[in-house]
Amino acid sequence: MEREVGVNNVKIAVVGGGLVGALNACFFAKRGFQVELYESREDIRRATVVKGRSINLALSHRGREALKAVGMEDKIVSKGIPMHARMIHSPSGKRSPIPYGKKGQYILSVDRANLNKELLSAAETYPSAKMNFEHKLVDWNLESGSMTFLRNDGSTKVTTCDLTVGCDGAFSAVRKRFMRQSRFNYSQTYIPHGYMELTIPPKHGDFAMEPNFLHIWPRNTFMMIALPNLDMTFTCTLFMPFEDFEKITTGDEVLDFFQRYFPDSIPLFGEEALKQDYFRLPAQAMVSVKCSPYHIGTTCVLMGDAAHAVVPFYGQGMNAGFEDCIVFDELLDQYNCDFSICLPEFTRLRVPDDHAIADLAMYNYIEMRAHVNSKWFLFRKHLDMILHYMMPNTIIPLYTMVTFTRTRYHKIVKRWQWQNKVINRGLFLCGVSSVLGGTYLLIKHPPCTPSIKLDRLWNWALSLK
Amino acid sequence: MEREVGVNNVKIAVVGGGLVGALNACFFAKRGFQVELYESREDIRRATVVKGRSINLALSHRGREALKAVGMEDKIVSKGIPMHARMIHSPSGKRSPIPYGKKGQYILSVDRANLNKELLSAAETYPSAKMNFEHKLVDWNLESGSMTFLRNDGSTKVTTCDLTVGCDGAFSAVRKRFMRQSRFNYSQTYIPHGYMELTIPPKHGDFAMEPNFLHIWPRNTFMMIALPNLDMTFTCTLFMPFEDFEKITTGDEVLDFFQRYFPDSIPLFGEEALKQDYFRLPAQAMVSVKCSPYHIGTTCVLMGDAAHAVVPFYGQGMNAGFEDCIVFDELLDQYNCDFSICLPEFTRLRVPDDHAIADLAMYNYIEMRAHVNSKWFLFRKHLDMILHYMMPNTIIPLYTMVTFTRTRYHKIVKRWQWQNKVINRGLFLCGVSSVLGGTYLLIKHPPCTPSIKLDRLWNWALSLK
Repeated sequence: MEREVGVNNVKIAVVGGGLVGALNACFFAKRGFQVELYESREDIRRATVVKGRSINLALSHRGREALKAVGMEDKIVSKGIPMHARMIHSPSGKRSPIPYGKKGQYILSVDRANLNKELLSAAETYPSAKMNFEHKLVDWNLESGSMTFLRNDGSTKVTTCDLTVGCDGAFSAVRKRFMRQSRFNYSQTYIPHGYMELTIPPKHGDFAMEPNFLHIWPRNTFMMIALPNLDMTFTCTLFMPFEDFEKITTGDEVLDFFQRYFPDSIPLFGEEALKQDYFRLPAQAMVSVKCSPYHIGTTCVLMGDAAHAVVPFYGQGMNAGFEDCIVFDELLDQYNCDFSICLPEFTRLRVPDDHAIADLAMYNYIEMRAHVNSKWFLFRKHLDMILHYMMPNTIIPLYTMVTFTRTRYHKIVKRWQWQNKVINRGLFLCGVSSVLGGTYLLIKHPPCTPSIKLDRLWNWALSLK
Repeated sequence: MEREVGVNNVKIAVVGGGLVGALNACFFAKRGFQVELYESREDIRRATVVKGRSINLALSHRGREALKAVGMEDKIVSKGIPMHARMIHSPSGKRSPIPYGKKGQYILSVDRANLNKELLSAAETYPSAKMNFEHKLVDWNLESGSMTFLRNDGSTKVTTCDLTVGCDGAFSAVRKRFMRQSRFNYSQTYIPHGYMELTIPPKHGDFAMEPNFLHIWPRNTFMMIALPNLDMTFTCTLFMPFEDFEKITTGDEVLDFFQRYFPDSIPLFGEEALKQDYFRLPAQAMVSVKCSPYHIGTTCVLMGDAAHAVVPFYGQGMNAGFEDCIVFDELLDQYNCDFSICLPEFTRLRVPDDHAIADLAMYNYIEMRAHVNSKWFLFRKHLDMILHYMMPNTIIPLYTMVTFTRTRYHKIVKRWQWQNKVINRGLFLCGVSSVLGGTYLLIKHPPCTPSIKLDRLWNWALSLK
């Protein structure tokens, strides 16, 4: 380490006091760094109305590992609701569970606001960490390292630091500065779907549906999901193309729509409540952001949504952001806090993984609402589980690798492609064997030439692609 | 048209006086609109040193059609040099031509600076067009429509218009305003390669190589190309990963490198001239920019590189930009200059086409330097040409569709994928027939079971993918 041996005089500015920013403040403060956290909004612990992002999140292995590293896992898990399976609601109201993994494997429905509050309070317990709310980054001179924050009272604070960590979300102010760097790769992609949150209240003082499931109403071009909350409500999220949201303009149209596609949900919402809830807020947009590199020189690094906002369909946005924090922490250990090595290494390690989970989330955007309804998909899900049971080290379902391991995301994608090839070829060979059996009979007693069978074989194999 | 019937009081601001901006000024002025063109740099016709972008370009059908529409085709073509084929230079110095299309089909090497000058002068001949050089867009209030330009003398000009046309290139100032619009999709991707321009001087008062070719030295991970100029020089462009450029730091290393990979080019450059030329300018980056939509409301639209910068490997950057101008002109005719229809229609029509050519250019980035060396590639190129000759309306080579037609780019990609499927299946069936012939013999005189042949068939078909 080029710096002096003590870490106490290393000054870190964490920009953004959301989930990843607050967790990072814990990680850095735990190490003894001087941490200043800057958040543009007011302190969420004092806010009367929490605006914006969705209410609940699915916490899984990667996120839990990060929380464990700062001693927060048990506290957060105790306030989460385990979800062991998806519960698929058919249009007729039939419910069928599809487990997430093996017995005992589950994801946790956690409250975003509570998690954020707990992490901020945890960060504040470190004497070397200081929280600055209502401080908005308005100027940043990369050469001199001076950052200017605008306070709510109109005054400004100018400060410098050894490392700026941009955790300020999908519309990151820190990342804007990256756009002026040469050869910075960047993409922002809005999907045609918007989302709207609706609430299912408790029923007779209990959950209105089975609580330990992530409920899904897949309807091909759109879908609804529901996650349980500690107060026995469910937060439902309706994902639908914006143009379809716009078609529904009256309370009666809301009811007609739900009657047609989600009839079993209407008694759970209550007709009048649903009509009101639907028009409370307009549908919100969803963006997928990818960029590279994640760092500038030895002084700035992006993490969480600022580096890689993903669409929410794999439940990995927060988990991937939390894993960023562990990976960086591991690098600080490995390279003795030398930022000139840790920052490029972070980019090298993390970009392919974050891009992989962004792609998987986009893939699941289609799978969750469409494939879940197909027989082939259900057959393959079951086959994957059976093969996983028979060969636990050879065939591991994609969802299991993503959700219940810390296998690097980009390695998961490679392995998944390989597994699919193996399974499809296996199925093909089963097909060949059975057809060959038939062909053998045909050769013994030929009603026509064997080439017809070959054609069918070929067509069938192609249709698998 | 909602506006008054006359077009004379419609005011268009064209931002950017490069190729697409100058051509657009012609299109709009020809129609009778009041055109103000704003260019941040000095007038290229008066500039002593023209900095920046590459010297020559390949003009093909789409670009020529646009020039024809403003009466400029003949003037520009007369100063271009026809290139009928690629000339592939092997490492041993062997040269093999690969024609671009049928006899009589060629692309034109044209001088960027001259083309730009001619278009500016053509625009200036229209009384309703005014050119403003050294005017840099610094502020733009979308609501009020007022644009502020900073002049070189430090003064500013504030203006309003009915339509702002952003033709200000890959780093467009107009597009920056789009980034603040909701649900604007954007990506900028830098490729790992940079480019460097080198000059081959005339030899004994003539071209040092065959002039009517685009010379290519494909070397898998890097390549060099050369285009002829009217002054009998060639402009060579070396495309190579930045890390490889950085490895060459001395004149002797330059010579060693060229000796190893492009030995036949050294006598053409001259040893000393090459050593100097190489260090004249550092390698330049190449970016691919995609975005959507191309318009905001009824008052602003992006065209050319501002909307879709592409990597230069299909020679379609300028041609696609020029085609934007024709497409918009056609829409103005079709919808009687109603911007509230023309702008969304332009986005709807043009985004898929420009994205398709961006993808094709990226594909060619690999094909030009690597596949050109593979036997399979050459076999397929020849097969495509033969099939095109036999069935001119069924099989049309990709390059022909892109370069010598105005077929929409995205339709070309679809058709190309279909053609490839047909050709590959055709090849597969040839394979099946011949193997079946063998199988029939094997069944009559079996040395082993037929399933072995089936396996081979399957493996071979898979390897085609």
